[in-house]
Amino acid sequence: MADALERQTCREAQVRDVWRARYAQVRSASQALAAPLSAEDQAIQSMPDASPTKWHLAHTTWFFETFILKRFVGDYSPSGEAFHYLFNSYYEREGPRHPRPKRGLLSRPSLDAVNAWRRHVDEAVDALIGGADESAWAAIAPLVELGLHHEQQHQELILMDIKHVFSENPLAPSYGAFPPAMVREAPPLEWTRFDGGLKEIGHAGAGFAFDNEGPRHKVWLEPFRLASRLVTNADYLDFMADGGYSLADLWLSDGWASVLAEGWEAPLYWRREGGNDWRIFTLAGLQPINPAAPVCHVSYYEADAFARWAGKRLPTEVEWEVAAESAPASGHFADSGYFHPKPAVSAGLAQLFGDVWEWTQSPYTAYPGYKPASGAIGEYNGKFMCNQLVLRGGSAATQADHIRATYRNFFPPAARWAFSGLRLADDA
Amino acid sequence: MADALERQTCREAQVRDVWRARYAQVRSASQALAAPLSAEDQAIQSMPDASPTKWHLAHTTWFFETFILKRFVGDYSPSGEAFHYLFNSYYEREGPRHPRPKRGLLSRPSLDAVNAWRRHVDEAVDALIGGADESAWAAIAPLVELGLHHEQQHQELILMDIKHVFSENPLAPSYGAFPPAMVREAPPLEWTRFDGGLKEIGHAGAGFAFDNEGPRHKVWLEPFRLASRLVTNADYLDFMADGGYSLADLWLSDGWASVLAEGWEAPLYWRREGGNDWRIFTLAGLQPINPAAPVCHVSYYEADAFARWAGKRLPTEVEWEVAAESAPASGHFADSGYFHPKPAVSAGLAQLFGDVWEWTQSPYTAYPGYKPASGAIGEYNGKFMCNQLVLRGGSAATQADHIRATYRNFFPPAARWAFSGLRLADDA
Amino acid sequence: MADALERQTCREAQVRDVWRARYAQVRSASQALAAPLSAEDQAIQSMPDASPTKWHLAHTTWFFETFILKRFVGDYSPSGEAFHYLFNSYYEREGPRHPRPKRGLLSRPSLDAVNAWRRHVDEAVDALIGGADESAWAAIAPLVELGLHHEQQHQELILMDIKHVFSENPLAPSYGAFPPAMVREAPPLEWTRFDGGLKEIGHAGAGFAFDNEGPRHKVWLEPFRLASRLVTNADYLDFMADGGYSLADLWLSDGWASVLAEGWEAPLYWRREGGNDWRIFTLAGLQPINPAAPVCHVSYYEADAFARWAGKRLPTEVEWEVAAESAPASGHFADSGYFHPKPAVSAGLAQLFGDVWEWTQSPYTAYPGYKPASGAIGEYNGKFMCNQLVLRGGSAATQADHIRATYRNFFPPAARWAFSGLRLADDA
Amino acid sequence: MADALERQTCREAQVRDVWRARYAQVRSASQALAAPLSAEDQAIQSMPDASPTKWHLAHTTWFFETFILKRFVGDYSPSGEAFHYLFNSYYEREGPRHPRPKRGLLSRPSLDAVNAWRRHVDEAVDALIGGADESAWAAIAPLVELGLHHEQQHQELILMDIKHVFSENPLAPSYGAFPPAMVREAPPLEWTRFDGGLKEIGHAGAGFAFDNEGPRHKVWLEPFRLASRLVTNADYLDFMADGGYSLADLWLSDGWASVLAEGWEAPLYWRREGGNDWRIFTLAGLQPINPAAPVCHVSYYEADAFARWAGKRLPTEVEWEVAAESAPASGHFADSGYFHPKPAVSAGLAQLFGDVWEWTQSPYTAYPGYKPASGAIGEYNGKFMCNQLVLRGGSAATQADHIRATYRNFFPPAARWAFSGLRLADDA
Repeated sequence: MADALERQTCREAQVRDVWRARYAQVRSASQALAAPLSAEDQAIQSMPDASPTKWHLAHTTWFFETFILKRFVGDYSPSGEAFHYLFNSYYEREGPRHPRPKRGLLSRPSLDAVNAWRRHVDEAVDALIGGADESAWAAIAPLVELGLHHEQQHQELILMDIKHVFSENPLAPSYGAFPPAMVREAPPLEWTRFDGGLKEIGHAGAGFAFDNEGPRHKVWLEPFRLASRLVTNADYLDFMADGGYSLADLWLSDGWASVLAEGWEAPLYWRREGGNDWRIFTLAGLQPINPAAPVCHVSYYEADAFARWAGKRLPTEVEWEVAAESAPASGHFADSGYFHPKPAVSAGLAQLFGDVWEWTQSPYTAYPGYKPASGAIGEYNGKFMCNQLVLRGGSAATQADHIRATYRNFFPPAARWAFSGLRLADDA
Repeated sequence: MADALERQTCREAQVRDVWRARYAQVRSASQALAAPLSAEDQAIQSMPDASPTKWHLAHTTWFFETFILKRFVGDYSPSGEAFHYLFNSYYEREGPRHPRPKRGLLSRPSLDAVNAWRRHVDEAVDALIGGADESAWAAIAPLVELGLHHEQQHQELILMDIKHVFSENPLAPSYGAFPPAMVREAPPLEWTRFDGGLKEIGHAGAGFAFDNEGPRHKVWLEPFRLASRLVTNADYLDFMADGGYSLADLWLSDGWASVLAEGWEAPLYWRREGGNDWRIFTLAGLQPINPAAPVCHVSYYEADAFARWAGKRLPTEVEWEVAAESAPASGHFADSGYFHPKPAVSAGLAQLFGDVWEWTQSPYTAYPGYKPASGAIGEYNGKFMCNQLVLRGGSAATQADHIRATYRNFFPPAARWAFSGLRLADDA
Repeated sequence: MADALERQTCREAQVRDVWRARYAQVRSASQALAAPLSAEDQAIQSMPDASPTKWHLAHTTWFFETFILKRFVGDYSPSGEAFHYLFNSYYEREGPRHPRPKRGLLSRPSLDAVNAWRRHVDEAVDALIGGADESAWAAIAPLVELGLHHEQQHQELILMDIKHVFSENPLAPSYGAFPPAMVREAPPLEWTRFDGGLKEIGHAGAGFAFDNEGPRHKVWLEPFRLASRLVTNADYLDFMADGGYSLADLWLSDGWASVLAEGWEAPLYWRREGGNDWRIFTLAGLQPINPAAPVCHVSYYEADAFARWAGKRLPTEVEWEVAAESAPASGHFADSGYFHPKPAVSAGLAQLFGDVWEWTQSPYTAYPGYKPASGAIGEYNGKFMCNQLVLRGGSAATQADHIRATYRNFFPPAARWAFSGLRLADDA
Repeated sequence: MADALERQTCREAQVRDVWRARYAQVRSASQALAAPLSAEDQAIQSMPDASPTKWHLAHTTWFFETFILKRFVGDYSPSGEAFHYLFNSYYEREGPRHPRPKRGLLSRPSLDAVNAWRRHVDEAVDALIGGADESAWAAIAPLVELGLHHEQQHQELILMDIKHVFSENPLAPSYGAFPPAMVREAPPLEWTRFDGGLKEIGHAGAGFAFDNEGPRHKVWLEPFRLASRLVTNADYLDFMADGGYSLADLWLSDGWASVLAEGWEAPLYWRREGGNDWRIFTLAGLQPINPAAPVCHVSYYEADAFARWAGKRLPTEVEWEVAAESAPASGHFADSGYFHPKPAVSAGLAQLFGDVWEWTQSPYTAYPGYKPASGAIGEYNGKFMCNQLVLRGGSAATQADHIRATYRNFFPPAARWAFSGLRLADDA
């Protein structure tokens, strides 16, 4: 029996080591993403929706300090009120906070100070994971897990946001160097048919998921078809050449208002090079358009207009999830270091995961029976369930181990700075 | 056989007479609603979302002229380009149009000129209904029917919009005189349970419906409960007294932003009379609050926050329609001449129709298989399917014969000038 | 001695009769200006800077009621708090007031009610003028005089503002009918030289003047030259043809920002009729451009840019007044019923008065020793002495007996809806 | 004669050495001001009116490169189009430029790159000063002189702008350390009388001046009085305690609109510490208010309202210059390293120079006969002569050798981030 206890303790210790390694890995991935950027780069905020790299590094740290260390480490020495105020994102329960549009005014704390804070917190979390007693650990583990998934979300935001910063700079700086994709022609578009009937979607069982992915629930589905690959730049250039941005008929009313107000005539980051030649600003600088690569940085309005022009429609999130459920969650992700979508390489249903987030026609709402967690953590997802649309599948800026078939991303319909594209669907 | 033909013709003539009468009735109802208003009253636009009464009278006329008379009456003498431009609401296919926020700058055409135009069009439509040959009539009849339902929608807008105009006037003018409701106490709140399972909703079969009400389709539904009556002013005053407008936790993120930006502290048209006493501006002027009457002129954000405070939720439109399908579409409507919601008078599931539009938690989207009509008429509904929520059941400003269980109204979540309230729902 | 007293009383009575007649004449001139307009026309506000005709009729009445009747007529029955609130323009001392941009939301009080109020006030003022004892009259007379000059200012605003209302109406309604001017060629531009030296400007002595016209004071002036006539449409078309609106060099920095932000490419009310043909919207509707007529409805920025383009400058208000002081204050004014500037008809220094207000380069500031009156009347002029430029000489929309050489009008530099033009000046 | 030529050359060489030293001194002063700031600090732009430190360092360098090196050094290797575009401030003649509100989005070029560019330009200018032949030098010298005075203006802007950046940071960082001033009581206010008569103001003769300081010209002046010292914080606290910010009567109409729109209740950088206690954010961090020190960071509107409350007025710029002309241009300037105004230390007319810029009541306009230089340099001053007021005398953030009696600074009336205060004046 003593042996059993010892074995138990030993297994526990191994579990904790796994968590410590996981924690270290995710946290260091953030540092790796920031590494190509100077302190100046990391301080800039180019629009209210985006945040400076330094702020992301600090806010993810705030999350661990606020929800774990302050609660579970009696003698923890926290960073002080100013940091708590500066790096709270939107948690009303955690008190007032620095206004979002002013995140770019903070030259202090310096990047060095933020990184020192990261190390301070990392050491404390590491010690806590290793040392917490079992009963505390039962409460801590889900928060560590949530914190790491939260950090991975901000890793994608770091890439999205610095891309926007650099796009505003007439010097068109590169974040990294990666060559234009080689494939110049996409596989032919095929259609995969899916049966209708009473289905289930949503997360259930073991494995991490955000609260908004559940409960798993029944839905009635009519038969439908999905395009085998993402809409490409070549497809999208056809839409543009056919007057896509000047035909009000193709657009939702609010979408057409955005076209006129914002002067949209191409996806975000496309730059006209005289006449109808375009180049795209990427994290590797300005590059020629690869016709075979998926179109990226389109709003929901553009995705919807394209689908209407093509005589098709966008999938619902139910359709997408039913189709994706049995597919492996593999694809072209951020881990490749190639932060731009790539062409599909083979025929057949492809690219469901990675490359670009796929706009669905589904508004972001609560699943039947959804209840947010109590306390500030409960503010994570539920309060954003209005005025947004669901995107699925992850992108070339998403960490590979962050995504799954039930994962629900969401943005307002006019947003374009995410790595967002589309796949066509149709009734069967 | 000649007899049979004659009988047929005779029946046709009777049918046409019914249509002529129906047309005359709906059109004169608009005039009756405008009758208490001076030419000055009818020219004012108090916000971009609202339109002057005169504009409503003209636009509904434009609809008949544009989509019926110009197409089906060879020698019809239309109103000219200026009217076509001025009174197009949002039909891109019908060419450029006067900017919506500038509808209140039009002292010309005068009200007299608009009313003369109405008579001119009415005579032509009346003659067309009476005289069109059968094959033309087959195309005309659905347009006349659509035009009349369209006119009824604008009848409600006339009441909504003039209420807003008068609310902006420090003289607090009355549109009409109707006494405060007598009932001072609402029936106790009860809960009605509905079974789940595979259901169908949406319009099918004979009878008019807008395109957005179909196709009828299957949905899977979990068991649920509906409150027997609408949320009352007394209920809502409890919410306010409990700090409803100052607790961020209760609100959607965008809703809380509206509370702060707009300074909301009560429903639209409520006026503080010192301390916590309130009066309500109605179409019969300023009146004391009747605690038993349904709360009205709340946004989706307020309805949602109230439901969260109450520990319940808003119904989905599917739940509402399933519940309403078997109930008679009767209630307190505009035909009563009493343009304000009244208290429920008996226990049991009540007020599903009339009194106030009920916010649902369902975003306004296309039903599976929905296809808009072709041509400009197709712009009627589909292009608004974004950033809006569905409301059900009609209000005290809706014509009784305009509503049905499948009817889908929709407004953006911050809108408050419709006669909108709420009913609570819950999982069973 | 009894005789002397009687003669004195008799002279007084004659004086009072003159005032009664003057009052009646000015007040009825307002009614005459409103006469061509329907109640609908008189209710519209087309921009925050402008007011509805009905509001002008009411506000001028409010002035007499507030500053005279309420103070000097013990048993006067005033219009009530609502009118006092609605028709106060900007007198902080008179309490809170209806927001300026909301003057167009007031269908009530009706035009009939406003006109009834005018008659009520007119009767009371007439009786007061006739019946006040001498000591009261000494205090009343200057207020009546101020009120009548105030009303004349609003008479010009009635014309300016309804012109703007009608210009926003695609029907391009006419306020009145007057033919295009006959003269097609302006007299040649000549230059009149004026000596420098120690001069005096500003009002002194008997006769009415606004407080901002004094005190009369010394100024040192260098010799200068004034153009003999106003800048014409032909002159201005040369400026436009020479790229006037696209050469940043010609513009003040703030002016250039206005050009870009507002998309200016011609004076207000000019409409391009294809290519470089223009028509002008006038109070007599759309008319061809008369090259010989003075350019009108230009901002200070445009006047200044034109002068720079011409290699000249705008006059200072000191120069203008020195030149105008010895000229008769005659010209083309509103009394003609022809509400549009006309070409100069003869060589020699002309058009100093009437046709268009002439922009000077002088910011609107207090003269040395200027003290505003005490009380609310003191708010008349002084508090606007910032961010505005002085214009001189009156326009085709000004009453002839309202103007004089010392009269200072003022508008912000971007304003264009006044009847404003320019005359060139130069160093001698 | 050879000797004479040699002596001449020798004198020339000495003159050039003086210029080289002067150039080095002014340029290194900019570097010294930037020295306490990190690269992050130097990248931030906290409002559109302000610019990042790095931008100031680059723009002043652009000035020398654009107007001197590119024109006068045949083989000069310039910085390229991107820098020319990024660091042009407002010179339309020099082509399009980076939008002012986006200066804070430029993490690249890095601070290191900007400083390397400064060194490159400095070497080239130094060589040019030393090596240009006499005829070239005659054209170059005035541009070098202008460039150095321009750089000194930006030195003051560096301090103003970083103060604003730090004021937006909840950490309230200090730029430098300097103790609160010791003197706690200001000398009593006395009045100095000045005679009127025909005076002259404006720059003439040798010595540098900006073009807007001339031509020297005659003005007629009435006798006047000037307060012996600046308005102090104690004076201003009396104004506040007396309801200064809540009495509309005291304010210009546009000023009152600013009070309401901006929620002003104290000068910029004052922070309420509970009740009526205030602290001031300075370049040495948050400090208690010294009642004897001059009030600083007030707008023209506040200065004007204070003067009205005090029953006095602001001086005209003519009055100020007449008074200052005979005084030594000495006072408390930036060279002291104490970047905050200090109390007056003795009775008698004091503080005319240094401490705070003094608002005058004079709009910023051209002097009679003023002609801007031709070419882009001509854009330096003239195009801003609208919507601004003149300030005189320099401040604690001004370089001592940058100021003189004829110097005209100017800001819009609502601006508060300059080191601006006021001195009272009155008629004699």
